[in-house]
Amino acid sequence: MPVRALVFDVFGTLVDWRTGIAQAFASSGLDGDPSELADDWRKRYVPILAEVNEQKRPWGNFDELHFVTLDDLLRDRGLEASDDTRRGLVAAWHALDPWPDVRDGLEQLRGSHVLATLSNGHVAMLVDLARHGDLRFDCVLSAELVRAYKPDPAVYLMGATLLTLDPAEVMLVAAHPWDLKGARSAGMRSALVRRPLEYGPGSPERDDPDADHVVDDLPELAARLRV
Amino acid sequence: MPVRALVFDVFGTLVDWRTGIAQAFASSGLDGDPSELADDWRKRYVPILAEVNEQKRPWGNFDELHFVTLDDLLRDRGLEASDDTRRGLVAAWHALDPWPDVRDGLEQLRGSHVLATLSNGHVAMLVDLARHGDLRFDCVLSAELVRAYKPDPAVYLMGATLLTLDPAEVMLVAAHPWDLKGARSAGMRSALVRRPLEYGPGSPERDDPDADHVVDDLPELAARLRV
Repeated sequence: MPVRALVFDVFGTLVDWRTGIAQAFASSGLDGDPSELADDWRKRYVPILAEVNEQKRPWGNFDELHFVTLDDLLRDRGLEASDDTRRGLVAAWHALDPWPDVRDGLEQLRGSHVLATLSNGHVAMLVDLARHGDLRFDCVLSAELVRAYKPDPAVYLMGATLLTLDPAEVMLVAAHPWDLKGARSAGMRSALVRRPLEYGPGSPERDDPDADHVVDDLPELAARLRV
Repeated sequence: MPVRALVFDVFGTLVDWRTGIAQAFASSGLDGDPSELADDWRKRYVPILAEVNEQKRPWGNFDELHFVTLDDLLRDRGLEASDDTRRGLVAAWHALDPWPDVRDGLEQLRGSHVLATLSNGHVAMLVDLARHGDLRFDCVLSAELVRAYKPDPAVYLMGATLLTLDPAEVMLVAAHPWDLKGARSAGMRSALVRRPLEYGPGSPERDDPDADHVVDDLPELAARLRV
């Protein structure tokens, strides 16, 4: 079955959250190394999504969850921040720059494939990120539409259903093997984009022997799909 | 409250369904005047959507409903069509040309406002239409996401909710007063685009004294919103 649509993870895969969030911490005046604060905040992401999927916590969108994890981080580090500072930090997740290959890479891929986000970020946040980075998608699909977070199969299946495609006609493009594994479990194809700077210099190398493609950037994926 | 997002009706407002569907009938070889067949098919649209909203008929997307109304039309006219012909006619709704002002008009509006579809067409169909006409939206919102059809308030409210806006910050742009009225009932702003050729030459003139704006095309709306 040919791949008709490419659906994209966003944070880490298309946008560089660490640089943007570290800049926001640097501007905030909060004590601590800005990159380390960014990493600390981000590492609280998978556990809180799991709480939602396990119904230990009611559905909340990324802004709501970011407020919770930010407050946890501040408390754990004995830091205090004004409401304005907290709001500014949460808003910074809406204005992250894309990796340098992304804008042109999407344009190359859009000629031959339907392109959609398939992110745990909520629709409004994805709209903000796409506008900020001038990224063009054919549609914005989000975990919000099923109120469950990846890797819950409902998210991947929603993507295929709304595009009226068989999951095997849809390829998830992501930088995280756990996400690609979730997509494959739902019957989708998968492509890993290595993002060696996601966690800064010295990020752990990633591979995924089960992925259809492992590439360094989106133009490389476009070349592979043209073969 | 300033208008932050413009949401667009699609059939009749952005794309010229009548010309495209008449061409599809002309190519089909079915007996009858192609434009009259197109009008006949289209007029079966509001009643079948009402059946879904009144729960007299289970949810069906536009392809499914178009098959039903096409078969009704063929039976009423004593016409027979092969499955291929029927599929071709239903598919024609995915490849309708935009009105001449739409592509550039959207580009003018997108600088200052978030742009989304808010159509009764399903997501995959809207993606096809946007790709066909090279129309750029920030996201594709569809009645499909709430499984109810405009003018059910749930559709309009979903649009505002997913954009994380107050309904008063969202303006529906549509060619049909019944749709604008539905948007206003949900608390949205409204703009009528006159489309004097929607039903061909001699279409009834439309006005909406309750709309915030009544314009001839999207560039005129862009000019109004810049004032």
